[in-house]
This record gives sequence, C-alpha cells and structure tokens, in this order.
Amino acid sequence: MTVSTSFVDTVAWDDRGLAPAIAQDHRTGRILMVAWMNREALALTAQEQRAVYWSRSRNQLWRKGEESGHVQRVHEVRLDCDNDVIVLQVEQLGGIACHTGRESCFYQVLRDGEWQAVDPVLKNPEEIYR
Amino acid sequence: MTVSTSFVDTVAWDDRGLAPAIAQDHRTGRILMVAWMNREALALTAQEQRAVYWSRSRNQLWRKGEESGHVQRVHEVRLDCDNDVIVLQVEQLGGIACHTGRESCFYQVLRDGEWQAVDPVLKNPEEIYR
Repeated sequence: MTVSTSFVDTVAWDDRGLAPAIAQDHRTGRILMVAWMNREALALTAQEQRAVYWSRSRNQLWRKGEESGHVQRVHEVRLDCDNDVIVLQVEQLGGIACHTGRESCFYQVLRDGEWQAVDPVLKNPEEIYR
Repeated sequence: MTVSTSFVDTVAWDDRGLAPAIAQDHRTGRILMVAWMNREALALTAQEQRAVYWSRSRNQLWRKGEESGHVQRVHEVRLDCDNDVIVLQVEQLGGIACHTGRESCFYQVLRDGEWQAVDPVLKNPEEIYR
C-alpha cells in the first residue's frame, strides 16, 4: 500500500521509514508506551482513530490490542517541531498498555542508583496473551 | 569519559549508543520534547538532576538551557520495559522547552487532514538565543 496523504508526507521519516510515537493517556497524562510508526501505520491511525504501529520485531503492522484486546482509541495526534516524533492522546482500553500487564511500560524508576519496578502488575501476561 | 555506572549499563543503547528521552512537565504531564541521550548524558542527568542530552547535530553533550536559560530540573527518571526509552519528569524553567519559543515542541495537531500549529509562541526565538 502506497500512502500519499499529505500529512503523512510532512513527517520526517528516518532512513528506515519510521518515526517514534508516544502514547499518552488523554485523561491522566501518563505516558503509556513508545512504539514505531511507518507511513501506513500513521495513515491508518488517523483513519481508524485507533493506534496502529509498525512492529520492528515482526516486521508488520501492529494494531495495538489485536491480541490483548488492549486497544488504544485515539483522541488527538500531534507532531513535534522537527516533524520526527508523534504523540497520541489515547484512551487505553483495559487500562493496560504494557505487555508485562502494567498500566504503563515506564514502571522502572531510578532510585539510589538503581532501576526499581514500582508499578503493580494489573493482570498476568499469560492471561492477556493466550 | 567512560561511564560504568550500572544503571547506565541497564539501558539498551542503540547501535549509535543512543536512546530517546522524553521530557514531561512534572506538574501538568504535558510532553515537552524528545531528545537523545548517550551513556554520559544519562549519568550526568542523574548526577546533576538536570536534563543533559546528546546533540546529534552538534555531536556533543547538550545541557538543556545552556544557551537559552531554559534548564530542565529533573524530578524523576523512568525507563520502559524494553530498557530503551527514558522518561524525565521535569520542571521547565522559563516555561519554554521548544526552540520556537513555545512551551512544548508538540504544537502541531492533526485536524482535517492537516498539521495545524495550535500553541502560542511565548517568546521570540531571537530573544531566546542571542
């Protein structure tokens, strides 16, 4: 699929054709996760108002929640001054964005020179992906 | 400078030795900017409790605010589940993170298929960098 939508052309895609996308909870402001988008992922995200990323490990489009049910409904899409980072304001269905079963992927805090996991696992990953 | 601090070793630095770092306003949750860190930048950020990035364009350490005065005091440092993205909770001195003179670099919103600049310029960049 070739995407020629002009707002997609504005993005300064890197040499792999990717840009990082940050998903932020639209109510609390909590940063939930960072993933990658390519042209098609951004176009589909805008069209479906649902977060669609590009999985670098699987080398394919990744409709967030397709396995887990943890879909991200998109309320707003923003782009930064360099046109190379995207921010999504999302509603996180199920309240879990991380594959570890936590609300946010950013559950490790630097304290006393160590990364400490401070947020609870809300659901066993084995129950999420089965 | 060789940085061997163990929390720095935990980060999954990319093949350039870099990781993206998101600066978020610690009070409002507004995402202010995304920049890059290398090992030394992260170590200095933790040590000085002030955001220090790695400038890819200038190929040198960048103490945010060194020219503009718009220093970021760091309240918390987090790492994601893949250990490859950092989030800083910061107090943005001067209330301006973006080189365009805006609060946040993410001032372009996708509306009606176009990126629209929706946030005000708080200070003329020529007055910031002189």
